Amino acid sequence: MKIDLAFTPHELEKKELAGKSVVVIDALRATTTMTIALENGAQAFIPVGTVEEARKLVAQNPDYLLAGERKAMPLEGFHLGNSPRDYRPDKIMGKTIVMTTTNGTRALVCARGGAEVFIGSFLNLGALCERLIEAGRDVLIACSGEKDLFCLEDTVCGGALVERLEKTGPSIIKTDAAHAARILYEHCERDVHAMLCSCEWGVYLEGLGLGKDVRICAQVDSSRIVPVYREGEIFLDR
Amino acid sequence: MKIDLAFTPHELEKKELAGKSVVVIDALRATTTMTIALENGAQAFIPVGTVEEARKLVAQNPDYLLAGERKAMPLEGFHLGNSPRDYRPDKIMGKTIVMTTTNGTRALVCARGGAEVFIGSFLNLGALCERLIEAGRDVLIACSGEKDLFCLEDTVCGGALVERLEKTGPSIIKTDAAHAARILYEHCERDVHAMLCSCEWGVYLEGLGLGKDVRICAQVDSSRIVPVYREGEIFLDR
Repeated sequence: MKIDLAFTPHELEKKELAGKSVVVIDALRATTTMTIALENGAQAFIPVGTVEEARKLVAQNPDYLLAGERKAMPLEGFHLGNSPRDYRPDKIMGKTIVMTTTNGTRALVCARGGAEVFIGSFLNLGALCERLIEAGRDVLIACSGEKDLFCLEDTVCGGALVERLEKTGPSIIKTDAAHAARILYEHCERDVHAMLCSCEWGVYLEGLGLGKDVRICAQVDSSRIVPVYREGEIFLDR
Repeated sequence: MKIDLAFTPHELEKKELAGKSVVVIDALRATTTMTIALENGAQAFIPVGTVEEARKLVAQNPDYLLAGERKAMPLEGFHLGNSPRDYRPDKIMGKTIVMTTTNGTRALVCARGGAEVFIGSFLNLGALCERLIEAGRDVLIACSGEKDLFCLEDTVCGGALVERLEKTGPSIIKTDAAHAARILYEHCERDVHAMLCSCEWGVYLEGLGLGKDVRICAQVDSSRIVPVYREGEIFLDR
């Protein structure tokens, strides 16, 4: 099994996706929030690129919920932001949620050529690792990054997945990028929460008073679900 | 002093360069080779993007030498390849060398907006660190990468520079990328040569029988010179 990693959607665009299991990570906060929402009973997410597109889709489908952020802030008239604490069962049970975020959405769009696309975060590392081994395909980890630049938290999360796969999976060949991510993970595995608080985006979120969200995003292995992204929707297929 | 790092020329293009000291690194082998050549008496390098451009420039200036590679292999009719062992004083003394390489040239072109642009490698880390502290500007480390994708060796070399600056320089603020590079350097600082042999491009070079070049590129602090890139030429300004 080969493991590769893209630090940014731009790097992802330059890589061969066909036949691979692709894992999209936006650890602070989009893929964490999606995992929690689906676990709390949401039906599906439809990720879209722009605020206008999101509004339009919900106007056409009044049952859908409108969700997302720009610069981590909720958007006017939206039902939900990008905080995992927003997605309580009473609000989202059985609902389809149209979501637009700055980085996660772009990474998802770029990941569409994969044989399968999974949603990853610190919450579902163990479940994800099992699913990837079961699939048996080469793995490409797609970090959402920050405006097509490197960000530490997605890479460390990707590195955690590399480490799990190497420890439990079949013989692994990894690229420089996957190797580097594993080293970065091992550097901070003792305290994932501290890493999330000290990385650039984490500092920004803490500054907005969103420290509780950061703590939720650090809950390693708190979930057993693996959302899939297929035909434009993110949902649980089993 | 702020320190930032771009893993690839594409990331570099997205960053603000004005007013910064930019350090271009292509550790295996272009910036190592340039440093050795200038130390051995070459007058200057003129980096150009394409083989055709290089040939044309040398046709117009018959005193110039023609140098470069594609996929690490010398080019037909060129005086020099990209091996540091090619650049002996008897061949290059006083010469201007037109050079085209796959990745280093692109990084140099993207770095042109910096207040000053320096050439870095494992060979001149100490001298470079002193020069950057003396300049007193914010620093942007520009890794050449491999076809706009991450490569380990340039990032580790950049991380070594981050570590030197933090240990000897003024108070440092660093981005996620610079922080990650330092962690990666610290992971392999005990044996830079082993890292260069095990990274993807190092394995490729070893496979071509260029292990001697890789060993030269690992000679940390073997040079005291800091080449500058100014008005299209790389040379020693002091």
